Amino acid sequence: MAKESEPLEWRMSFPDGMSMLFVSECMPHTAGFVVGLLFKYLGLMQSGWRYGTSEPRKIVHCFKVGMALCLVSLFYYVGPLYEGVGGNAMWAVLTVVVAFEYTVGATICKCVNRTTATFIAGALGIGVHWVATRFGKAWEPIILQVSVFVFASAATFLRFLPSVKAHFDHGALIFIFTFILVSVSGYRVPDLFDFAQHRLSNVAIGTSICVVTSIFCCPVWAGNELHSLILSNMEKLADSLDAYVAVYLRDDADADADVDDMKKEASKEKLIGYRSVLDSMSTEESLVNYARWEPAHGGFSFKHPWKDYLELGALLRSYANCIDALSGIVSDTKAPAFLKKYFSTACLKLSSNSSAVLRELVVVVRTSAESPKIGLRLKDMCVAVQELHNALKALSNQKTVATETKPEEFSEGKGESNVLPFVAIVQLVTLSSLLIEIVARTEKIVKAVNILAHKVTSSE
Amino acid sequence: MAKESEPLEWRMSFPDGMSMLFVSECMPHTAGFVVGLLFKYLGLMQSGWRYGTSEPRKIVHCFKVGMALCLVSLFYYVGPLYEGVGGNAMWAVLTVVVAFEYTVGATICKCVNRTTATFIAGALGIGVHWVATRFGKAWEPIILQVSVFVFASAATFLRFLPSVKAHFDHGALIFIFTFILVSVSGYRVPDLFDFAQHRLSNVAIGTSICVVTSIFCCPVWAGNELHSLILSNMEKLADSLDAYVAVYLRDDADADADVDDMKKEASKEKLIGYRSVLDSMSTEESLVNYARWEPAHGGFSFKHPWKDYLELGALLRSYANCIDALSGIVSDTKAPAFLKKYFSTACLKLSSNSSAVLRELVVVVRTSAESPKIGLRLKDMCVAVQELHNALKALSNQKTVATETKPEEFSEGKGESNVLPFVAIVQLVTLSSLLIEIVARTEKIVKAVNILAHKVTSSE
Repeated sequence: MAKESEPLEWRMSFPDGMSMLFVSECMPHTAGFVVGLLFKYLGLMQSGWRYGTSEPRKIVHCFKVGMALCLVSLFYYVGPLYEGVGGNAMWAVLTVVVAFEYTVGATICKCVNRTTATFIAGALGIGVHWVATRFGKAWEPIILQVSVFVFASAATFLRFLPSVKAHFDHGALIFIFTFILVSVSGYRVPDLFDFAQHRLSNVAIGTSICVVTSIFCCPVWAGNELHSLILSNMEKLADSLDAYVAVYLRDDADADADVDDMKKEASKEKLIGYRSVLDSMSTEESLVNYARWEPAHGGFSFKHPWKDYLELGALLRSYANCIDALSGIVSDTKAPAFLKKYFSTACLKLSSNSSAVLRELVVVVRTSAESPKIGLRLKDMCVAVQELHNALKALSNQKTVATETKPEEFSEGKGESNVLPFVAIVQLVTLSSLLIEIVARTEKIVKAVNILAHKVTSSE
Repeated sequence: MAKESEPLEWRMSFPDGMSMLFVSECMPHTAGFVVGLLFKYLGLMQSGWRYGTSEPRKIVHCFKVGMALCLVSLFYYVGPLYEGVGGNAMWAVLTVVVAFEYTVGATICKCVNRTTATFIAGALGIGVHWVATRFGKAWEPIILQVSVFVFASAATFLRFLPSVKAHFDHGALIFIFTFILVSVSGYRVPDLFDFAQHRLSNVAIGTSICVVTSIFCCPVWAGNELHSLILSNMEKLADSLDAYVAVYLRDDADADADVDDMKKEASKEKLIGYRSVLDSMSTEESLVNYARWEPAHGGFSFKHPWKDYLELGALLRSYANCIDALSGIVSDTKAPAFLKKYFSTACLKLSSNSSAVLRELVVVVRTSAESPKIGLRLKDMCVAVQELHNALKALSNQKTVATETKPEEFSEGKGESNVLPFVAIVQLVTLSSLLIEIVARTEKIVKAVNILAHKVTSSE
């Protein structure tokens, strides 16, 4: 909190670089609150503007929702349509509001869930109501209440099961609602069958509008999104690896030199790129669930092996975990320059080869065809591992290293001459070891990508 | 797929150990399909049973939902109540179906969202309808359609913004729906104000039933869940670390010995415990969002610093990343036994000290009071780091190591006598280095926990 004696300062920067500064020496508290609210609102506007310009497809989606809702509300304005749906056009509106999602797959998933659940629950509701009426007016509410309790509890329980939650969560919700609506409404509505039919036809109208608008008007496919997410994650990992190794092994002289600010910013972005890979699990899972509902589109057939993307995603995260461990070591550089120089060739070669493999895999996943280069890149990576191993081995024979670098530098270490500065080496050894672990994880990714590419080719 | 010549086999095991085995030499395809479906259903039943017995509170939640729905459907059965809500009791039912969530926080969040959004959208809808009627019957639908398009698009866009999505997603949805319902219904409904009022009162009834049932009938607090999740994650990390270091450093003779199967299973569970920490981000985020809506309960005041749990969770995940990197090295043991023995004292001491700190932090977070032991444990951990450093340093002077272990074993290495088997050491050095990195991350966790405990004490 600002001390009372200090003037209140409100500052915000706009995208065009213009900045506003308000200083009020003794602004009253209420005015301060109002201005604060105003700025919060402006801040929201600003972040909305940034978001909108960076993601134009989301703006298009908003217009699509508006369009679909205008379309469905025609059922209010046009007389015959209004009569046709029994004056219950609001169910159709509610369907569009709830079921119209950003991706085609999510929309189809919700629409199929909604229609099926409405049909099943409607039929069941009519059945239960029929049974209840056989028992006379006194027993009817009791039987209805018991059935509501049983079916609602059971459906709620099913929603907890992971396999149901992933695909049929919305369906279970709609099942509960429609069942109560139909079975209990029977107590008040004269023609229950008509009522249930109207509800079903309204939901069908709503879902049709959703699906048609979603597919034929600038569609956003969950499959496409998932595909791009995996590809961009691979690229981010390759960039991060390169960036970390480069940062660690660069000469301190280089580091101090005036590096272009733009370059610094870009390299910082690359450094932390791996973090978004670590956070992408839930997005991947929901995209996989939705992609499986989508019809064939673009280069993806209906039987595209979407589930395999989950495994690939998990492997990419385990790769990112290694980079995260690496980041801890890099942030605390201790190794002397001459040792870095000794290792830099082998380490840089290994990291650049490993990231080259990852970048080649991007091509494989994108084209779903085996790349002729991938074998070569893998071989290069293995050679680089061997070279790093050799460098490590050679280090054990101090004289080898000593003759390659300046011998007198070795006695700079921790006291005794003729002994390597072991603690300083520890970091470099760890770096090498983590790089070798990263190579092992890269090989697993190669295998997963090959299996994926093979499945794609055979599913076409 | 099974080859055609092989008999079809269906096997499943039940919780009581009973197992069924069906072999049908030439089962017709339809029968096979039906049996398959049956088993899928039985499998769902079985997993449901397991789930239900392991999470009794979720069963209670299902009964709570059933109860709340029975309560709200009384508005159908009881005449005066039915008239009171204008025959629109279904809105109340729908509210209970949609807004009754597992945790109190989530229920309150949805209920507040729903009520506020219904109120704002209802008022806005009446306003827009009033304006539209001023322009005459011909212009009315056009003005209404335009306003629907504009407001629906804008609200949909807001749903994309992260800050809105986290807290007001449901509200935005309900805003769109209620706005259309009220503004467009005005075209058909004679008394719009009454209509809007009924909708609001129905929603209010539904939300009240939700909130009351949720809070006063075996409440599940999001704050409590979050608290326990963080505590159990800390314990899992401590267990995983201990387990990995123990597995790596154990004698191969021990490993081959007949270890109790139960013990093996338990140790395996501990080994992979860290993985669930890596996957808990989205759960933590939603729990934090919901916990902030909850009133004071148990040991948590209304102003409990829930947001700090996010940071703590992120630090725990970064700790888990290091364990994941460690797991790669442990799975591929290369170091000879005598070297392991040389390192084992220092490494085991460090890992057990680091996990002891984590376990002590569990106590701190649980009691929200500084533990007198934590300083001691931290000091022990620092001493252990120093000892590991010393062990590494001593390794650089081969003679020191040689006198401590059997000198002839050192020439078993890669050829030249008097030279350490460097490549074999690489693994141990990496292990030590990762352990030291884990200690650094533990210290960060200690800081975060101290800040949290301080905030908790000052908020009470």
